[in-house]
Amino acid sequence: MNRIQNLFGIAYPIVQAGMIWCSGWELASAVSNTGGLGIIGAGSMYPEVLRDQIIKCKAATAKPFAVNVPLLYPSIEEHMATIIELGVPIVFTSAGNPRAWTAHLKSHGIRVVHVVSSVKFALKAQAAGVDAVVAEGFEAGGHNGREETTTMCLVPAVSDALDVPVIAAGGIGDARSVLAAFALGAEGVQIGSRFVATIESSAHQAFKERVVAANEGDTALRLKPLTPVRLLDNAFAQKVAAAEAEGADSETLSELLGRGRAKRGMFEGDLEEGELEIGQVSGQIDAIQPAARVVEELVNGYRSLTKGMSDPKFQW
Amino acid sequence: MNRIQNLFGIAYPIVQAGMIWCSGWELASAVSNTGGLGIIGAGSMYPEVLRDQIIKCKAATAKPFAVNVPLLYPSIEEHMATIIELGVPIVFTSAGNPRAWTAHLKSHGIRVVHVVSSVKFALKAQAAGVDAVVAEGFEAGGHNGREETTTMCLVPAVSDALDVPVIAAGGIGDARSVLAAFALGAEGVQIGSRFVATIESSAHQAFKERVVAANEGDTALRLKPLTPVRLLDNAFAQKVAAAEAEGADSETLSELLGRGRAKRGMFEGDLEEGELEIGQVSGQIDAIQPAARVVEELVNGYRSLTKGMSDPKFQW
Repeated sequence: MNRIQNLFGIAYPIVQAGMIWCSGWELASAVSNTGGLGIIGAGSMYPEVLRDQIIKCKAATAKPFAVNVPLLYPSIEEHMATIIELGVPIVFTSAGNPRAWTAHLKSHGIRVVHVVSSVKFALKAQAAGVDAVVAEGFEAGGHNGREETTTMCLVPAVSDALDVPVIAAGGIGDARSVLAAFALGAEGVQIGSRFVATIESSAHQAFKERVVAANEGDTALRLKPLTPVRLLDNAFAQKVAAAEAEGADSETLSELLGRGRAKRGMFEGDLEEGELEIGQVSGQIDAIQPAARVVEELVNGYRSLTKGMSDPKFQW
Repeated sequence: MNRIQNLFGIAYPIVQAGMIWCSGWELASAVSNTGGLGIIGAGSMYPEVLRDQIIKCKAATAKPFAVNVPLLYPSIEEHMATIIELGVPIVFTSAGNPRAWTAHLKSHGIRVVHVVSSVKFALKAQAAGVDAVVAEGFEAGGHNGREETTTMCLVPAVSDALDVPVIAAGGIGDARSVLAAFALGAEGVQIGSRFVATIESSAHQAFKERVVAANEGDTALRLKPLTPVRLLDNAFAQKVAAAEAEGADSETLSELLGRGRAKRGMFEGDLEEGELEIGQVSGQIDAIQPAARVVEELVNGYRSLTKGMSDPKFQW
């Protein structure tokens, strides 16, 4: 047992990322039931939707699960009140100041984890009292840090700087990258893209199939003057790229983005005009699988790799 | 012994990157003498300088060493003729079409390795007949790919796509990242930044000290419309960033860059107006050491980590 397994009370230190439009109760409960940690992504949910999702998740699993709340969410007070009222045991916060809610949540016995993209933000999260951090590298899908530090460089740096345990995120999709994350100093991994391509993910079927079809090089970090976000290439992403090449400011990009593009792409399946948030690791995902199968493959593959360290390839 | 050790005839599959202005015969021979593979970076050398460097390197070590040649180098015929004449056993090529020189070099018994930033270029290099590829991620210093694929995502993807062995580069500076690279499928690592900060590196002392002082987040990929290159932040890098934010085209950036900036920064020690090429991993480098000490630390640390796989942190 390592510190992340102990902290969450889970069999495997594999966390399914809370993702807008993709991770509802079906995915979260499936992952938790298999022994990992499932997360409901509250960023795309109205308060009454989140309440319903938590109730359904609790009915579907007796195991620990979490809710991810972006700290800039407009109705955050309602989200947090629901989380506390319904006894959610673990909260992952992201995109905001960890001092805002950490102490309050912890006073209700909730474990709090904050997502960071740099050593500086990791130290701030630790000072705010979080139980662990997710160190998320440049290769991750969706919203991303301005430092552009990759998982390979971020995880050792954050591990060295903090006392609390580190969960690695960004670029992790198979047993090899799970082992790499642990080698770098992580005690857990958070995986997003691979879980988008599961049966239980609430992503639109067309988006799941697009993720499976993606090749290396098909994503890029866009909308940097606004908020950096990693997107799959499509008509919308190309419009953004063209505007950025001309030096578009955040206002212009905000107009181009408009409202509801993420829902349109990931939930409604508009593969050309929607915003398709996914990580670089999508290039290596080649099947839509049950979430339990994904967890099993990661655990078995990881165990096999660590046992295989006596192979001549690793011994020198 | 793995395939990279066999291919080069070296004790440890640790390659010191060929770097302009930083890796002459003193660094290359020191690394080769310790059991890794040292590389002379020919991209910043006039033909007569390269000849002199190879002669000195051969006098300083009886072990295998290599020369790195950027394929866009203007006097490349002279470089290649010198390499063949003086019996250099291994050539690393980069930044150009691997079909141009691979067959010719191999017909003289030279091992050829090409540096790639994507699966597409890796397949082209293999088709050109190279003996191995270096898969270099976005976090690497200096010239970089347009795909922005990180080491964590690039190495597994290239390993899966190729039959020839893969050397991982980008973000590798300590034993943890060496093990991560091997976990991802590499059979060797190429390390640049850490070797810039060695006694034997020909980098200016002020640049070495700046590398040691660097923190996570201090580098960025600049000059993308021209050729993407990872630079340490300084007055020059900020001018470039400002121009890029206004949508500067390649011509404007080329004028801003001018001539001789890399030499000015890395070799002459102008830390504000020079071009300081270095990787993200510079944030974790905290001492200027003898090259042999670096190799020893990496080898001993790696062995200790692989033996430590029975630790509860790794066993779940």
